[in-house]
Amino acid sequence: MSSEKPKLDGWTCPIPLKHYPTVVMGHGSGGKMMADLIEHLFAPLLENELLAQYGDSTLFEVAGQGGRLAISTDSFVIQPLFFPGGDIGRLAINGTVNDVAMSGATPLYLTVGFILEEGLLMDDLGRIVNSFGTAAREAGVKIVAADTKVVNRGHGDGVFINTTGIGVVPPGVNIAAQNARPDDVILVSGTMGDHGMAIMSLREGLAFDSTIESDCAPLHTLVQAMLRVTHDIHCLRDATRGGLAAVLNELARASRVGVEIEETAIPVQPAVQSACEMLGLDPFYVANEGKLVAIVPRAQAEAVLEAMRQHPLGRQATIIGRVVDKHPGVVLTRTRIGALRVMDMPAGELLPRIC
Amino acid sequence: MSSEKPKLDGWTCPIPLKHYPTVVMGHGSGGKMMADLIEHLFAPLLENELLAQYGDSTLFEVAGQGGRLAISTDSFVIQPLFFPGGDIGRLAINGTVNDVAMSGATPLYLTVGFILEEGLLMDDLGRIVNSFGTAAREAGVKIVAADTKVVNRGHGDGVFINTTGIGVVPPGVNIAAQNARPDDVILVSGTMGDHGMAIMSLREGLAFDSTIESDCAPLHTLVQAMLRVTHDIHCLRDATRGGLAAVLNELARASRVGVEIEETAIPVQPAVQSACEMLGLDPFYVANEGKLVAIVPRAQAEAVLEAMRQHPLGRQATIIGRVVDKHPGVVLTRTRIGALRVMDMPAGELLPRIC
Repeated sequence: MSSEKPKLDGWTCPIPLKHYPTVVMGHGSGGKMMADLIEHLFAPLLENELLAQYGDSTLFEVAGQGGRLAISTDSFVIQPLFFPGGDIGRLAINGTVNDVAMSGATPLYLTVGFILEEGLLMDDLGRIVNSFGTAAREAGVKIVAADTKVVNRGHGDGVFINTTGIGVVPPGVNIAAQNARPDDVILVSGTMGDHGMAIMSLREGLAFDSTIESDCAPLHTLVQAMLRVTHDIHCLRDATRGGLAAVLNELARASRVGVEIEETAIPVQPAVQSACEMLGLDPFYVANEGKLVAIVPRAQAEAVLEAMRQHPLGRQATIIGRVVDKHPGVVLTRTRIGALRVMDMPAGELLPRIC
Repeated sequence: MSSEKPKLDGWTCPIPLKHYPTVVMGHGSGGKMMADLIEHLFAPLLENELLAQYGDSTLFEVAGQGGRLAISTDSFVIQPLFFPGGDIGRLAINGTVNDVAMSGATPLYLTVGFILEEGLLMDDLGRIVNSFGTAAREAGVKIVAADTKVVNRGHGDGVFINTTGIGVVPPGVNIAAQNARPDDVILVSGTMGDHGMAIMSLREGLAFDSTIESDCAPLHTLVQAMLRVTHDIHCLRDATRGGLAAVLNELARASRVGVEIEETAIPVQPAVQSACEMLGLDPFYVANEGKLVAIVPRAQAEAVLEAMRQHPLGRQATIIGRVVDKHPGVVLTRTRIGALRVMDMPAGELLPRIC
């Protein structure tokens, strides 16, 4: 038991697993020990009728066939495994739910691959899988396939999680990185940089008046609320690795348009701003895990913004800029003092292992 | 460049990547360096029109809608990364193609998540991704989504790969672990233990007259050949972790039937047999990556066997035993000297990191 960590949930180690205070190599070898792990840990926490097929593959059907499907895959290698506002299990659900949701799809099914390091505390694994299962239920997605591997001590890092998500795209929705048009309006759903600075503050041992919490959350119901206003949404991205700057640059390049942003319009929490200044980071380059960037036609912008603000995850939504036909592929920001500067693509390592 | 390894293919490092003899943390951070890796390595080797959407998720449609879908996920953590008969890239395609195929489905789409360790030779990564792309084309599956993460040196092991596969199950096919019935016949598609002993011989530095090669291969066309004979196939499993013994025990338990095997009927290569004796291992517990176990009604057995033998991956297919209504959940084998022994489920760590 790791008493220094906050108890996120009520998971207690079931008796048949108590022989193993930590994960050992045998838990990955396809025998009785792995069967124990599946029966007493994974199955009760992730169970549903599809996963219970226990086949080499799982059979499923997609409701309302005829529509297009959206699929996304993501591996999560974040350190530390537990952080204010979440843990790697919750992140692995929400990260992939959000990627699927950014095409306008309703996420339905997820697969999961765990890569465990020998020596991982069984109690930590239990808490992570419990949190993973809870986040899946909260997001309304079913785990349809799962795999576990164990690697030797010193050849992994506690736990890595891969999730792959599938969703159904409603008819008439056509959201893509290539769809931004001059005069479109650019919105963000809330404050920038929370997730990345929650992790960095923890790693660097920074203390503030208030703890910075990760914004880790599933965005699909926010997207659905926006789509109820209009299907005419051009681009959606969740601003993860590389932050807002990476998203705006990718969209500007993919759509061959220019982007102009009002720096003062971008919401940033004061604690995040302070932490960024202390570490010499720019919050617009820092990862989020529960915020999206939307590009919509000017005519729809106010109505979409209003719908976002009605949603618990979009209360601080705001318009931050516009799409222009000048300087295609380039993102310009107007700074506090009125100067224009280029908001370039992040180069390389800014915040490693943030997700 | 790693001159000691056999050159599996013609991959040469493209000029824009030559600045980086190894993978560095920045290749995982969502910026320019990652964009270089995608543009110059992943995209050319894995390209297709679906992956080229470059969205947070990929939109796709399933041909012949109305059928059931099969999905499977698997992470590959094998060491060493390159081995006689394959490498982790080829294994990551065939392993998931086979899991999807074991429901009778035609595998169509795969997603991939790479977890790279800082310091991995760029040349090794290139060879692995090239091999991965080649195996995907050979198996006729499209890579529809991809993700790359980089972890610090000493917190990974070169490369881990997760693949998730989706296939379409033909109407009228109902293959499941629960479907074995007394008097059914049990077949294997070829020799047992090749993959595991190829890896173990390499790790232990064993030398034989001939190199033991992994049987790593995609089995979906073999399954399709069997289904052309009859849709009345009860169970299919590829005998990976835990080998033949794990598969037979799982099927006996899931179907609540007994299994009786003729040990002398199970094909094992002489070099594999020798290596197993040297290391004190039982080939029936050793992993395969291109062999399947089938349980079919007695009336169909000969015709299915004949179809298997006509296929390049089933030339040594043979009948190894039968399903009985006695001793449900228990697998018995008749040994060379006529004695009956229990072929139990493998307990724990037999051959770690074999896949």
